[in-house]
Amino acid sequence: MITYADILDAQAYLQKRIRPTHFLDSKFFSHRSGANVWLALETTQRTGAYKIRGALNKMRKLTSEQLTAGVITASAGNHAAGVALAAQWLGCEPTIVMPVNTPDIKVVQTRSYGEPRIILYGQNYDEASLHAHELQKQFGYPYIHPFDDDDVIAGQGTLGLEILEHHPDVDAILVPVGGGGLIAGICIAVKTHNPKVKIIGVNASGAASAVQAMQHNKRIMLEHVETIAEGIKVKQIGERPFAIMQQYLDRMVEVTDDEICEAVMHLAEKPKQLVEPAGAVGIAALLSGEVQLVKKKVVVVLSGANIDLVLLNRIIERGLRLSHRLINLTLSSQQELPALTHVLQGVQAQVLDVSVHRDLAGMSLADRIFHVELQTQDAAHVEKILHALESAGFRKVS
Amino acid sequence: MITYADILDAQAYLQKRIRPTHFLDSKFFSHRSGANVWLALETTQRTGAYKIRGALNKMRKLTSEQLTAGVITASAGNHAAGVALAAQWLGCEPTIVMPVNTPDIKVVQTRSYGEPRIILYGQNYDEASLHAHELQKQFGYPYIHPFDDDDVIAGQGTLGLEILEHHPDVDAILVPVGGGGLIAGICIAVKTHNPKVKIIGVNASGAASAVQAMQHNKRIMLEHVETIAEGIKVKQIGERPFAIMQQYLDRMVEVTDDEICEAVMHLAEKPKQLVEPAGAVGIAALLSGEVQLVKKKVVVVLSGANIDLVLLNRIIERGLRLSHRLINLTLSSQQELPALTHVLQGVQAQVLDVSVHRDLAGMSLADRIFHVELQTQDAAHVEKILHALESAGFRKVS
Repeated sequence: MITYADILDAQAYLQKRIRPTHFLDSKFFSHRSGANVWLALETTQRTGAYKIRGALNKMRKLTSEQLTAGVITASAGNHAAGVALAAQWLGCEPTIVMPVNTPDIKVVQTRSYGEPRIILYGQNYDEASLHAHELQKQFGYPYIHPFDDDDVIAGQGTLGLEILEHHPDVDAILVPVGGGGLIAGICIAVKTHNPKVKIIGVNASGAASAVQAMQHNKRIMLEHVETIAEGIKVKQIGERPFAIMQQYLDRMVEVTDDEICEAVMHLAEKPKQLVEPAGAVGIAALLSGEVQLVKKKVVVVLSGANIDLVLLNRIIERGLRLSHRLINLTLSSQQELPALTHVLQGVQAQVLDVSVHRDLAGMSLADRIFHVELQTQDAAHVEKILHALESAGFRKVS
Repeated sequence: MITYADILDAQAYLQKRIRPTHFLDSKFFSHRSGANVWLALETTQRTGAYKIRGALNKMRKLTSEQLTAGVITASAGNHAAGVALAAQWLGCEPTIVMPVNTPDIKVVQTRSYGEPRIILYGQNYDEASLHAHELQKQFGYPYIHPFDDDDVIAGQGTLGLEILEHHPDVDAILVPVGGGGLIAGICIAVKTHNPKVKIIGVNASGAASAVQAMQHNKRIMLEHVETIAEGIKVKQIGERPFAIMQQYLDRMVEVTDDEICEAVMHLAEKPKQLVEPAGAVGIAALLSGEVQLVKKKVVVVLSGANIDLVLLNRIIERGLRLSHRLINLTLSSQQELPALTHVLQGVQAQVLDVSVHRDLAGMSLADRIFHVELQTQDAAHVEKILHALESAGFRKVS
C-alpha cells in the first residue's frame, strides 16, 4: 500500500507540470446545504480532468527504455487523454485502445495530445481493455491502469495535498468514485495528515460498485452498469483502492441520474461551472440531502469537465425539467391561439414553442389541440399556470 | 478624468472584498490564433461579472447619510446585481428599475442580494432608465450610473491592475465594450504603467456605438441596437469613457452574433468556461481573424457569465450548427428507414433525431420524406455524408 511519502514525492514532481487547482466558494450550494461549500475545480486541470496526475506519476517512473518502447492502456475517456499528454511530455509513444463507439470528440481530444497510436476495438470498455491486455502480453509494454495501480493512486492523492494546503480547516471532502483511484489517494493524503477530516465517496446508483463493496466488505463485480455518469461507470472497484477505502473511508453514498442532471444544471447556472456528470456527483449528494454537513466546511471535488456539448445541452434541459423550469403541455380547447397566449402572458409563462392542431380523429370539428413548451420559475409557478389554463377553458391532455 | 492613483485607491478597498481574478491559459485558442492566450475569468467574480468592482467603488464613497437614504439605478443585468450586492455590504437599500420584460432569472438573482427594492417599469432599458432618473430627481437619491461615472470607471480599472500583476509581460488585452466603463478603467490602469501594451476594444456589430464613435471622433447615438450580447447592447458610449478611449485606445473592432455564438460554444467545449455572449466577444474577435496577434501574449477578458440556461443551450446549438457539428436534413427517397440508417452508419454520422413521412400531397405513394438531425465532425464530414446519401438514392430536399 502506498504511503503519505509517496504522495509528497509525486507532488514534488507534478507541481511544476500540472495546473494548481483553483478553489471557488459557492454561496448557492452553501445556502442550499447549510454547509460552507468550496468547489475544487479539477475541471480546468490539463486535459479537463484530474487523471493527468496519476498517469504522469506512473509514467515518470518508467525507464527511458520502457518509455521508448511505449506504454499501453484502454480507456474511452479522461484517462486516455491523461496518458496521451503524459506520454507527449515524456517523449513516449503510447498505444491507447478505445471502444469503437467512443464519441468522436473524445478520440479527437486524445489525438490532440501528440498523436498517440489509437486502436478502436471492442463494443465496450471491457472488450477494449481485454484487447489492450493481450497486446500488453504480446509486446511487453507497461500497462497504465486507470486506477488499480500504486503510482496512479499516489498521483491522484496529490489533489488531497492541495485541498489541505488551501483549506487546512476542512471538515469533509466529497469525492466521485468509479474505480476508486482518486478517493484512495485522497484518503491517504488527508487522513495521514488529519484523521478527523471526513471523506465521503459518491457513486452513481447505476454503477454502485463501491457502495456494494463497502456494504458486503468485499469487492463485487456488477453484472450490468448504466448511468449518465460515463466517467465513473465501473463494474468493479479496484483491488488496491478498495483496501485503502476499507481502512480510511468514512462513508459511501449513491445518487441517481436525475439528481446528477440537476447538479450539472445548478453548477452551470450558479457558480458558472461546466462539469461532466461524473464530476457532479458530489454536488448531487449534497443537494439531495443524502449527505448532511450543516455548518461544516466541505470541499466538493469537481473531477472533470469532458462532455459532448450536445449531451450537455440535453442534461441541462433535463435538469431544468426536473426543477420545474421547463415544461411541455398538451392542451385541448375550442378557443383560438390568441386566447391561449393571453392566459399564459397573464401568469408570466414564457412561451418557447407552440403548435396548434385540429381535425384529428375523434375530435369535434371545433376542438383544437395545443402543444406548448413553457419556461417557468418553479413548481408553484407551474401550479399557478395549470390553474389559470383550466379556469380559462384549456384542458390538460398530457 | 480619473488617474492611476484613483484606481490604486479603489484596489486597496476592493481587494479584500471581491474575488481575485483567476487566469487560465488556453492551448486551444493559442493554437487557433497563433498568440499565447490567457483568459481573465471575471465569470467567477461575485455576481458573475466584473460590475461589482465599479458599483462598490462608487458606493463606498457615499456618506452614511446618503447610504441610509438609498441609491438608485436602472439595469436589466449585471450592473443591477453589482449595485444590489454592494448595497447589501454597505447597509444601503437601493432602488433598482428593471424593464418589465427582464428575464425572471435576472430579477431573482438581483433580489437574492439582500432583497433590494426592484421596480419593473418600461418596455426597454431606455424607458427604465428614464423612470429611474425621474425618481432620482424626485427623491434625491444618488444615481449609480453603470459606466459614465469616474468612480465606477476607477473601480472597473482594478481589473487592469490584476492583469498587470499576474502578466507583467502582456502584449495586448482584448476587452468587451458596451458603455465603455471597463475598457476606460483598464486603459488608465495599464497605459499609465506601460504604454506599449495594446488595448483593443470589441463591440457587437449590432450595437457598435464605440466603433462608430472612434471612427467619427464623436459620440453617436445609434437609433436601433440588436445583438445577442445583451450585456453590451448600448446605444451610445459614455461621455467619460469615450474621452479616455480617445486618448489611450489602440483599436476598436466588431464581431457578428454568429461569431459570438461560435465563441461561446468553443469556450464551453475547450477551456470549459461558461460565458455570456457579451463576455465572449474578445474570443470572437480572435477566432474571426479580425484581430491578428501572432506570437503575442494576449489577455482576453471574459467579463461575465450571467445567461439564462435555455438561451445558453440555444447559443451552443447555434455554435455547433455554424461549425458543421450539428445538421438537419430533409431527404426524399422511395427506400425504407433501415436503408437510410445503414448509409448514415457507414459514414459515422450520429443520428440524434429522425422522422419519416409519407402520403404527402404531390408525392408518389411510394415516396417517403425523412427529417434527420445528425451530429457531425466538421464541414468535410458533412460533405462526405451528403455524397453518401446521394449515391444511395436519398435526395436532399432541404
